[in-house]
Amino acid sequence: MNEIPGGIDFSGLAARRLVPNDLELICVQRETMFLEAGGELSALRLMTEHFRPWLRERLLDGRYYGFALMEGQQAVAAIGLMSIDWPPHPSHPTLDQRGYVLNVYVEPSYRRRGLASALMKLAEAEFAHRGLNFAVLHATTSGKPVYEGLGWVATTEMAKIVQ
Amino acid sequence: MNEIPGGIDFSGLAARRLVPNDLELICVQRETMFLEAGGELSALRLMTEHFRPWLRERLLDGRYYGFALMEGQQAVAAIGLMSIDWPPHPSHPTLDQRGYVLNVYVEPSYRRRGLASALMKLAEAEFAHRGLNFAVLHATTSGKPVYEGLGWVATTEMAKIVQ
Repeated sequence: MNEIPGGIDFSGLAARRLVPNDLELICVQRETMFLEAGGELSALRLMTEHFRPWLRERLLDGRYYGFALMEGQQAVAAIGLMSIDWPPHPSHPTLDQRGYVLNVYVEPSYRRRGLASALMKLAEAEFAHRGLNFAVLHATTSGKPVYEGLGWVATTEMAKIVQ
Repeated sequence: MNEIPGGIDFSGLAARRLVPNDLELICVQRETMFLEAGGELSALRLMTEHFRPWLRERLLDGRYYGFALMEGQQAVAAIGLMSIDWPPHPSHPTLDQRGYVLNVYVEPSYRRRGLASALMKLAEAEFAHRGLNFAVLHATTSGKPVYEGLGWVATTEMAKIVQ
């Protein structure tokens, strides 16, 4: 589907699909998101240098998809989505993919209007349309209450730096 | 490397790498692991039907790798590993992969001998050897204390059934 699912309140903004030209927008939003979450700028700059070519390829071939919310010609919020390979699992026993949500970002002056929730509803509709019945994300502290309000729950994932 | 990293105590057992012939062993262990964690048998059988061909392909081409611990000719424990694609991230800013640990299983009569910890140490050495400096896993309730004891910490992952 190329149309935008109906019935979602975008607080007067227009929703559109991400396109390859959104490369820099998404790079800046990702870096800013991690900076606001307490990340260190020099490490994030290094990340972005490697993230940009990674993303370019995936915006072009559609492995990275998602939506932006527009105020006129300006994108003021966006969400990234991927269909990631995963072994068939009790939560999706017949499927070898799960949805992944990343880079959810709303410009500071557009916050507290429900835009992140609206983007998440778009994401869920998109995953359902693509036949993905199970999705995951990694929440920042500020994002967590939004996701909880939409029925997302913590998983048992653990991590370690192994070098 | 095909040799097994030294300095790890396998409690008298022999460690070897997983091979394509371990297909059924891993399928049975995965199903049993989820069953012991409270899963429902019919759903797990369905999962295994889809997991088996998924795994066959990846054992053959090396995308699924790992180790088994042997008592003579019998594998009594195993661990699965993958290098999963991931966007460059503050935890691995220059890398677009992270390690993933799955299907950690020790036969009941071989538990409480430190075998899961030994397998995890092998896993970490293998990831480091492959240049992966960050790894994740999903813990069962019984596995969690083992991972915590080795320095693994909970992430902020959240999930939702979106169908």
